[in-house]
Formats: sequence, C-alpha cells, structure tokens
Amino acid sequence: MAGIRRLVLDVLKPHEPSNLLLAKILSELEFVDGVNLSLYEIDQNTENVKITIVGDDMDFDEIKKTIESLGGVIHSVDEVVAGKRIVETVLTEQDR
Amino acid sequence: MAGIRRLVLDVLKPHEPSNLLLAKILSELEFVDGVNLSLYEIDQNTENVKITIVGDDMDFDEIKKTIESLGGVIHSVDEVVAGKRIVETVLTEQDR
Amino acid sequence: MAGIRRLVLDVLKPHEPSNLLLAKILSELEFVDGVNLSLYEIDQNTENVKITIVGDDMDFDEIKKTIESLGGVIHSVDEVVAGKRIVETVLTEQDR
Amino acid sequence: MAGIRRLVLDVLKPHEPSNLLLAKILSELEFVDGVNLSLYEIDQNTENVKITIVGDDMDFDEIKKTIESLGGVIHSVDEVVAGKRIVETVLTEQDR
Amino acid sequence: MAGIRRLVLDVLKPHEPSNLLLAKILSELEFVDGVNLSLYEIDQNTENVKITIVGDDMDFDEIKKTIESLGGVIHSVDEVVAGKRIVETVLTEQDR
Amino acid sequence: MAGIRRLVLDVLKPHEPSNLLLAKILSELEFVDGVNLSLYEIDQNTENVKITIVGDDMDFDEIKKTIESLGGVIHSVDEVVAGKRIVETVLTEQDR
Amino acid sequence: MAGIRRLVLDVLKPHEPSNLLLAKILSELEFVDGVNLSLYEIDQNTENVKITIVGDDMDFDEIKKTIESLGGVIHSVDEVVAGKRIVETVLTEQDR
Repeated sequence: MAGIRRLVLDVLKPHEPSNLLLAKILSELEFVDGVNLSLYEIDQNTENVKITIVGDDMDFDEIKKTIESLGGVIHSVDEVVAGKRIVETVLTEQDR
Repeated sequence: MAGIRRLVLDVLKPHEPSNLLLAKILSELEFVDGVNLSLYEIDQNTENVKITIVGDDMDFDEIKKTIESLGGVIHSVDEVVAGKRIVETVLTEQDR
Repeated sequence: MAGIRRLVLDVLKPHEPSNLLLAKILSELEFVDGVNLSLYEIDQNTENVKITIVGDDMDFDEIKKTIESLGGVIHSVDEVVAGKRIVETVLTEQDR
Repeated sequence: MAGIRRLVLDVLKPHEPSNLLLAKILSELEFVDGVNLSLYEIDQNTENVKITIVGDDMDFDEIKKTIESLGGVIHSVDEVVAGKRIVETVLTEQDR
Repeated sequence: MAGIRRLVLDVLKPHEPSNLLLAKILSELEFVDGVNLSLYEIDQNTENVKITIVGDDMDFDEIKKTIESLGGVIHSVDEVVAGKRIVETVLTEQDR
Repeated sequence: MAGIRRLVLDVLKPHEPSNLLLAKILSELEFVDGVNLSLYEIDQNTENVKITIVGDDMDFDEIKKTIESLGGVIHSVDEVVAGKRIVETVLTEQDR
Repeated sequence: MAGIRRLVLDVLKPHEPSNLLLAKILSELEFVDGVNLSLYEIDQNTENVKITIVGDDMDFDEIKKTIESLGGVIHSVDEVVAGKRIVETVLTEQDR
C-alpha cells in the first residue's frame, strides 16, 4: 500500500446522473476500495456533495475524469492522505 | 461485497402502515442486512423518518418501490456508501 | 437473528406499578434480551420514560399489551431496528 | 444473569455516615458487583449523591432498606436495566 | 478485589511539599495501584488539586493521614467506587 | 523506533504544485510512514494546509527542504512527538 | 513500573533552540518512553508549550535541568501520574 490512500473532495454536480450512480461508478475504479458520498446542499439544478474515497495508489486524474464525465466539478480537495499508513489529522493546542 | 453498501434516506410517510412494518419489510429484502428507522418529526397525517439501510449490492429501485408501496416518498438520499469496504465520512479542517 | 431487534419507546405511565416492575416484566418476555428504562420527566400523577428493548424477532403487540396492562401508554416509537444485523443511525452532513 | 442488572438512584443523605461507608456497605450486598457513588450537591446538613449499582438479579427492597438504615432517602430511580443483557440507552433523532 | 477501589478527592494544599512528592507517596501506599494528581487552581500560598486514586480495598483513613501529613486538607470526596467491579457513572435522561 | 515520530506543520503554499503532489512526495521520503494533508484556508494565490507526518527518526531538515522545493513555507511546528512510544497530549483540569 | 509515570508541564521558552530539539533531547533521557510537545502560544521572543512526558520512575529534577539547559522555564506541573498503573482523571458530577 502506498501513494494516495484517501481523498476528501467537495463536488458540485447536477441532480442527474444520481449520487447512487456516481458513488457506484467511483467504487468500481480498479484502485478504489470504498466510497462515501454525502449530500450537504441542494439547489434547484445542482447539489453539493462531499465524497470520501479510500484505496491504494489512487489516480486522481482518473477520479477527476470520472466525476467530470458525469457532469460534476471538483471545487476543492479538502484532504489528501498518502503513504504506507493512513494518518488521521491530530487536534493540537492550536485547534482548541 | 460490492455495489451499494449503505444508504441513508429521508422519507415522508403516512402514520399507517406503521414504522415497524416498514422497517421489517425493508429488512426482509434479499440484499439487506439490517435497517434502522428513526422518527424525527410527526405531523397530524404524516411523519418524517430517517432510514439507514445496510447490505450488499443493494438495489435502490427495489428499496424505493418497497417504500412507495407502503405510502412513503423518498425526499432525499443523504448518504451513499459503495464498494468493497464501508467508508465513513471524515471530518476535515473544512468542517470545524 | 431477524425481525425486530431493537425498539425505543416513549411511554407515559402512572407512578405505580413501579419502573422496576415494568422493566423486569418486559425483560422476561421470551423474545427479549434486555431492557433499559430511563426516567425523563415526573409529574404529580404520571411520569415519562424512555424504554429501549433489545431482542430477537420481537412481537410489538405483546410488548404493547404488557406496557398497557401495567397502566402505560406508548406515545411514540422513536426508533425501530430490524434485520440480521443491528444498524446504528449514521450522522450525515444533513445533521451538522 | 437476569432480573435487575443496573440501577441509577438519586439519593438525599446526611453527611454522616460517610459516602465511603455507604458505598462499601452497598457493594457488600450479596447480589451487587460494584457501586459508583458520585456527589453532586452539598448543603449544610445534607448532600445529594447519584448512586449507580451493578449486579445480578438485584433486590431493590434490600438496597432501599440499606440506604435508609444509613439515613438516606431515595428521591428517584433514574434508570433501571433488566434482563440477560445490559442495554444502554440509545440517542435517537428525538434527542438531537 | 473488593472494598474501596477508586476515590476522587478535592484537596487544598500549600505549594510545598510538591505535587510530585504527594503523588509519589500516595502511589507507594501498599493498597494503591496508581494516582493521578491534576492541578486546577493556584493561589499565592495554596493550590487546589483533584486526586484520583485507584487500588484494592483502600484504607481511606491512611490516605487522609498521608495527605494531611504533607499539609493538605481534603475538601470533599467527589466519587467513591466500591466492590468486585469498577462501575462508571452512567449518563441518564436526567443529565441531558 | 525513536527520534521524531510525528510532526504537525502549518504550511502556506501556492495552489501549484498541487496538494496531491506535495502529500505524495512527502510520503515517499524514506523515514515517512504516512502523511495527512488538510486544507483549511484558500486565498486567491495561496492556501494554508495542516500537514501531519508520521514516521521513524524523521529528519526535519529534509522535510522542510522538500516543502520549500515545492514553493511552501512552514509557518509553525504545532506539535512534535518523539521517543520510543507515540504520546498523545492529555486534557488536564487546566484545559477545561 | 513505578514512581512518576506521566507528567504534563507548562513551559515558557525562547524560539531557539527549537521545539524539535527540546522534544528529542527529552525523549532520549534514559527513563523516558515518549514525549509530546504542543505549541499553544507564540510571542515575539518566546513561546508557550505544553509538554507531556511518559516513562518509568522518571526523575523530575533531571527533566527540569534538561529544560532549563535549553533556556526553558517550567511554569507549572499540570498533571502528575504515579504508581504501578497509569490512572486517568475521572469526570465526576462536580465537573458537569
């Protein structure tokens, strides 16, 4: 296990194709182990979703292409985890 | 294990048939392992429930048909988890 | 293990018979593994309790009859868990 | 294991005999496994304590008699857990 | 294992002898397994510390004598745990 | 295992090269096991990221050189963990 | 394992020598297993750090001498843990 291991993406997308389809297609990428797609805002024509993708040596360009091919746009990459071991962010005195 | 693994649904339904029946019938779908149905608002004729369904390669259309056959309407799909592994959403610095 | 696995009930009852008796009698129903009864409001003649019941293939009608035979009334069924596996509710972006 | 398994009691008592003695004597009842006694209010002559008692098939009347023999009064039974299995209360959408 | 198993004490003491010495001496009492001493208020001549002591069949009088011999005064015994098993306090609906 | 084991860095960087590249290159340093890079502020030309790096006997100068070679500046080192064992910060009475 | 097992220190120090060096040198004391150094305030010439040190039968005087030899001053000892077993502070009703 190495390379990119987890990504958290903020994505804007149209209502169709559905979030079910987007999550399923992302989960079928060869280097992906699992996908969590959470809806956090709905407007008339679009919705904002937070997508967490876990895998091994993940190819960001392919993830991006997959999302765009279904009409989505990545607004920001909120977290990147890389390496032999999954590292969680640590709460420090600066965060209190 | 693959495909859709967990769904969180926001559902509006009449008081009858009961939430007990709805939870039980959903839990008996072949691809479902377990169901949690939580009541979060009651009005005179309707109630809003949050339904969490866990399973393997779940068929959303059959879930939707089941809910609708008991008088319910899916307002939104709040979370979709898909893939070989159940991925939880991650709190990032953007969420603080 | 299947059917109804956990119920959370909001119950209004007179002070007597006691909560000890009510919890004990519910816990002795054949299909029940355990009961948690928590007091959350006391008035002059009545009290409100939150009852969590865990078991296998539980019979709601028998639970209801038992509570009513001791003078209690079920105000609402706040949570139903059903299926082969106990599923907890998931906090989504909608809950933040 | 069956019957009453855990009790949470709200008790008013004089300063003497001490909380140490009360906790120790309760813990020596045959059917008790352990006792947690927490002080939450002190007045000039009395104090309020929250007592959590864990055991098997516990006899509430004997617990009550023991507390009263040391000058205490049970104000309320805040939680009763009964059955083969210790069940914790569950946070539902109603509690948010 | 039985008798008093854990104590939480609110202690007022002079700055000297130090908290290091007090914690160490308490930890060397025969019936004590471990001590946590946390400082929560400092004044010009005194300080308030919260002392958590874990052990087996602990002798409160010896603990008290030890603290007093080092110039400290026990203000209150905030928690007593007794019995074969360490019981934690339980959050009930009354605490919400 | 010894020396520097975990670092939390507050870093200011240009948008390019991307956070994906920065996390990946850091994770490929010989003494690094894993990297978590979280975005917490975006401006027009720059962004602030919190980088948590876990490894064994890590060489800070090499980490710093790597970050600077990609255009980043370390604003502060918010946490340093060193030694045979990873020690978490402890919440004391002073933090309440 | 006995004696002082964990210390939480509030330390004021100049910016140089660095926190990396201070953490590393403390972690190399014979009786120390690990060190966590967290920055919580920076001024023009000084910074305040919270240092958590875990070990066996630790010698406070040597720790103090080490910190002072690098220009630091211990403002307070916020927590001391001593004995055969590491005891965490317990939240009691007094803390709610």
